[in-house]
This record gives sequence, C-alpha cells and structure tokens, in this order.
Amino acid sequence: MERFPNPIYVASPLLPSLDDIQGELTEIWGTKWLTNMGVKHRQLEACLKNELKVQNVSIFNNGAIALLTALKALDLPIGSEVITTPFTFAATPHCISWNNLKPVFCDIEPDTLTIDAHRIKNLITPNTSAILPVHVYGFPCNVDEIQKIAEEYSLKVVFDGAHVFSTEIDGRGIGTFGDITMFSFHATKLYNTAEGGCLTYGDDGLVDKIYNLRNFGIRNEEKVADIGINGKMNEIQAAIGLLNLKLFREEQTKRMAVRARYYENLDRVAGIRIPRLRTDVTDSCQYLPIVIENSFPVTRNALYNILKKYNVFARKYFYPLCSDYEPYKALPSSSRENLPVANDLKNKVLCLPFYGSLELQEVDIICKIIAENV
Amino acid sequence: MERFPNPIYVASPLLPSLDDIQGELTEIWGTKWLTNMGVKHRQLEACLKNELKVQNVSIFNNGAIALLTALKALDLPIGSEVITTPFTFAATPHCISWNNLKPVFCDIEPDTLTIDAHRIKNLITPNTSAILPVHVYGFPCNVDEIQKIAEEYSLKVVFDGAHVFSTEIDGRGIGTFGDITMFSFHATKLYNTAEGGCLTYGDDGLVDKIYNLRNFGIRNEEKVADIGINGKMNEIQAAIGLLNLKLFREEQTKRMAVRARYYENLDRVAGIRIPRLRTDVTDSCQYLPIVIENSFPVTRNALYNILKKYNVFARKYFYPLCSDYEPYKALPSSSRENLPVANDLKNKVLCLPFYGSLELQEVDIICKIIAENV
Repeated sequence: MERFPNPIYVASPLLPSLDDIQGELTEIWGTKWLTNMGVKHRQLEACLKNELKVQNVSIFNNGAIALLTALKALDLPIGSEVITTPFTFAATPHCISWNNLKPVFCDIEPDTLTIDAHRIKNLITPNTSAILPVHVYGFPCNVDEIQKIAEEYSLKVVFDGAHVFSTEIDGRGIGTFGDITMFSFHATKLYNTAEGGCLTYGDDGLVDKIYNLRNFGIRNEEKVADIGINGKMNEIQAAIGLLNLKLFREEQTKRMAVRARYYENLDRVAGIRIPRLRTDVTDSCQYLPIVIENSFPVTRNALYNILKKYNVFARKYFYPLCSDYEPYKALPSSSRENLPVANDLKNKVLCLPFYGSLELQEVDIICKIIAENV
Repeated sequence: MERFPNPIYVASPLLPSLDDIQGELTEIWGTKWLTNMGVKHRQLEACLKNELKVQNVSIFNNGAIALLTALKALDLPIGSEVITTPFTFAATPHCISWNNLKPVFCDIEPDTLTIDAHRIKNLITPNTSAILPVHVYGFPCNVDEIQKIAEEYSLKVVFDGAHVFSTEIDGRGIGTFGDITMFSFHATKLYNTAEGGCLTYGDDGLVDKIYNLRNFGIRNEEKVADIGINGKMNEIQAAIGLLNLKLFREEQTKRMAVRARYYENLDRVAGIRIPRLRTDVTDSCQYLPIVIENSFPVTRNALYNILKKYNVFARKYFYPLCSDYEPYKALPSSSRENLPVANDLKNKVLCLPFYGSLELQEVDIICKIIAENV
C-alpha cells in the first residue's frame, strides 16, 4: 500500500463558507458591536436552547472557562473533593484544581469508557462536594445511577459533555442531566465556534449567578453584584456558531456513513474492539475510538506508529491518563490499584481519523493498513 | 443647539477593512487551523514584542483571563492580600478575588487618578503578597516609588495596563515595569482583537509557567506538566490583531487631533479640570476624562444627563468605585475614610466621546453643550 500523499489527521473542522462568514462580518462591522452579549450572542443562545432541548443555555469563550464557571457557580467549599474520571482531556481535572478543589479519580467502565458509577460510593468522604463525570467520545455516563448517588449523599453533579453536542437519550437532551452540563465548541469538535463552549442547566436560579460570573458581575452601568471574570463569547465566534448550526446535521450524516464503513471493515478484524452506542442514544459523531486488545498482533503504540508511516495521524486519546500528569500523579486516587481499567485501556484505545469529508475509499485504506497486521 | 441625529458613544472600535479580514480568513480557512497557537497567534506575539518594547509577550483570549493567569503564575499564597486601586474596571479586584486572594483598596492621587504610592505602605501587613496598580486612562502610575516599596517588602507587582497600549515612559515600554503587565485588547480599547489581551514580563523564567497556565499545562502530545486552563486567543482574533497593528498609529494621530480640540475648547471653561499626561509619557489615546469640579455650575451627574439629551453618551467612568460593589463594600479598606480622594472623584469624573472618526465639528458641539452650563 502506498503512503497517503497528504497527511490525514484525526479531525477536520466544520467551516462555514467564506461567503457566508463575510455576510455575517458585514453585519457586525455595520453595527460595530463586537462583543458584550450582542445580537449574535443572544441569537446563538436562543438557537442552542432549542437544538440541545434544554431549559437554560449560557455561552462562553471556551469550554474550559465554562467548566471553571460551572464549578464556581455551585459554591463548592474550598478544598472539598470532586470525584471525576482520569479518562478525559486535561480540562476536566484542571478546572477542579484551578478552583482550589481536589480531584479524586474514579475508575471507568470497560464498555463505555465513562466513569464507573458503581465505584463512586467507595470514594465519597465527608469532604466530597461534587461528581464531575464525562460523556467521553459521545458515550453517555450511567446518568441514572450517578443521580441516585448524588441525591443519597447530597452531592452536586456537573457533566463534562465536550463530546456529546446534540446527543439525546431516549429523546431527552443530554444537557438536562445533573446540575450543569458543559459543552465544548472547540475547533476539534463537530460543532465549533473556533473556540467556545456553553453551560446548560435546569435550575432557573442559576441564570443570574452564571451571567454574573461570566461578565464581571455587571448588572447595569451602575451595579456590580458579584465577583466575576470574562467568559464572554465575541460576536464573530457567535456568528460562526450560527452558521455551523445550519451545517452540523449534514456533517453528522456524512460522518455516520464514515463510521458505518469503519465498522464494516473493522468488525472482521480479530483483536479490534469497537465500543458501541446504546440504541436509545443518538450519535454526536464526535470521535471514532477503537480498542486494540491483547489478542491483536501488535500493540496500540505500534499500530499508531504504523499508521503514521502511511501519513495517517490517529490519536492516543486518552494517553496519558489525567492521573499520570505531573500535578496529579502523587494523589492517592491516582494509584494504579484504584484505576485498573483506565490504566489498561490507556494503552489500548486509539481514535481514528473521523470527519465528514473523509472519503470512504480512504477509510478502506486506513482499515486495510490496520488489518494487514493480523 | 440641536440634538445629534445619531447617538455619539464614548468609544468606537477600530476595525480593519472587510476586504483585509476576508484575506486573512481565506488563509485560515485554507489551513483549517483555527486555534491552538497557530501561525497568526505566533506572528502576533512576535509583532507585539517589538511594538510594546518588552522582553516576553503571551497573548490571551481576553484581558481578564490574562490577569487571572498573571496572579496565578506568581504563586501568591491563598488568602493573602493584594493592594490595588478602587478606581478601575471590575476586572481588577475580581481577578484577585477569583484567585482566592483578598483585594485591599488604596486611595488614589488627585492628579493622575492612579494608586497613591505614598499610601501603600500603611496598608501592608504580614499577609500582603502583591501590589496591583492600574495605569488608568493612560496615566502611568508612580512606577519608581511602587518598585521601591515592592523591593523593601518583597512584594510582587502586577500592573493592569488595560488603558496603556503602546505607552512609553521616557522611551521605555510601560510593559517592562513590575513583574508582569496586563494589556487589554477588548473592543472598547484603541487596539483591539474584538476580545483579547496579553501579558508582558521580563523574567524568562515565567515563559513556560504562563504557557502552561494558558493551555492546560500541555507540553506535547504525551506530557501535561502543570495545572492550566484555556486562555488561548484563536486565529481569527489574532488575524484582527495583526491587521489592527497596521492601523492603530493612524487612529492615535486622529485621536490626538480630537484631544487637542477638546482641550482647546474646555481649557476655557471654569470648573472643568483636565488631567494631563507628563511630558515624558507617550499618549495611548485610550480615554478622555475630565473632572467636573464643585465650582462648575452643575454636578457631573447633571452634566451626564444633559449630554444624553443631546444624544451624547459620555461615561461615568469609574462610578461606582470597586469598593462600592456588593462583594467588596464591607471590606475594611472600602471605608470612605480610607478612600477620600477616590470617593470624591467618583462623582466628578466623566469620560467624553473619544475616537478617531469623531469629527472636530462634533467635538466643538459637545464642548458647547458643556460650556453652556457655565
């Protein structure tokens, strides 16, 4: 097989046409209103409320600032513990730590790769204030079990939904579970605003609090009601968001064809396991993770390097685990004994190139590179 | 006099031409690299280093996240006190508080409206860790005196330079004073990237620390070295920044003519005081504040309302003081006794409309509205 002439990366951002974006910029330039909750900002929040089927939406300049704000909004006591998964992007534990809270890592389920709800109870102490589970790759966490535990122990629940834009569970928007859910609109996400993100939440009592935290607590020209920072999305990002709202469903359809083709090819390959969505869950089409089992002829790392030789850049996502990072590796909950499944899977998971403009023929070639190792 | 047909606001953002921005977007769309320290990001940091005459520049998604990061980078002990001015935008004390540090307000000088360096010593306790002075409206603080105090008491100094883009003191970039200086590139600033900001600093030892804090501590695909959040500026903002770097000097020249015309008109009006820059300081041309003294026939608030009737929207900037805000008003340092000058001036200062495209004839009319009250 020949090397791909151009590199194939794991993601390729959805972009509105230059003509459409020029139209939006012409409007913005006309009003000279570049930020501070302008027209586009308000339109985008209203549209997202419908799209995500949630009660409240607050958009942000990026997902991490949104998550930082969510934890702040819940007034968790300084120094208290937040139970989370090590199998996630760095933003998850960092937003906990930056707020002077302590991340406590909980192991994951082998099938969904999300936090193992049945192990959460063992980690709860009198100092635990919240749970921060992640709907990783688009797989929903065990939301019912997590909710039950939260109620039993009076804990707050913030979901990291960076990977589940538009996901529904049995027709219900995934952003309606827990106290708050964060979505990311980063360039690498199916739905993007270059950088960006939002919080969704059911409690109307949080609307003013989050509004304040996002914009310096400013209520009007002469009143500052609370301590806040700047989490505002500017009008240009919001305009990209409005345009991409019209495009992302078509992109999802294309990705579903890509996904089907990967499955068709790889289901026949011994030693490759493909985690599947439950049938009552809609597909956010964010990532395409596969698990390289011990029975596969080469390791995940070896396969990653083989693909690279063919100019295919898969991603060891998530490797390392958050519990392996410098600032967290000494935590008691970071021990390998506490995280056997995550420590096993961090060496086995590989995210394959996955975007709408990836041609099915290219998928076939990538799968052939993988299968040739059998 | 007749009412202005269209409202005249205090600021109007500098915008690159739609053609130029389209050119930049075409490049970005071509590479599909929308964020994460891309080409534009790197170019902008390099250009700003020259423009601001500083050793190091790190750009951010906005000035508040930059300031939040600056305080975090200096590892100030949780709960320690930071001495600052109440005569500033909300971001200044909020970034202190959000970091679980305590703002301590110090009174200001009547002439420059910046922190009164001679009152700082009285506020220092064993718990003081830093000073956060603000170069308000473009007037530099008493940097030499502040530096002397900082050295005597081993305190860190972070300057809020949101208003002093391009300012030089005797040929020296203002971003070279103190440990770190924050600049804002918000839409309301002469030099803007819609939202944005940067930190400048002399200590090369801070480069990696700030880089980590700004991007999740990620050093490479497999190494996360520190706790960080997302403070990255995206490529579109950076592109606006690159274009505005070519435009802002011309805008400053226009503003200097506007300022001269204001001075010419208002110097003759009894009861109006105009704070002036020292001759060794270059003009950032950010704001045009005037002080409505008691000898003026009407109060500042009355004048504000009169201007409004003529469709002129001046700004009571800064009113209220930060020490009047809900979360700070009960602090001991917020007492009126501690802040006599700031409490006097908060009722006297008015920022007048000030931007390059403001016509000199419009300036004359605004000044006539003001003078007619004499």
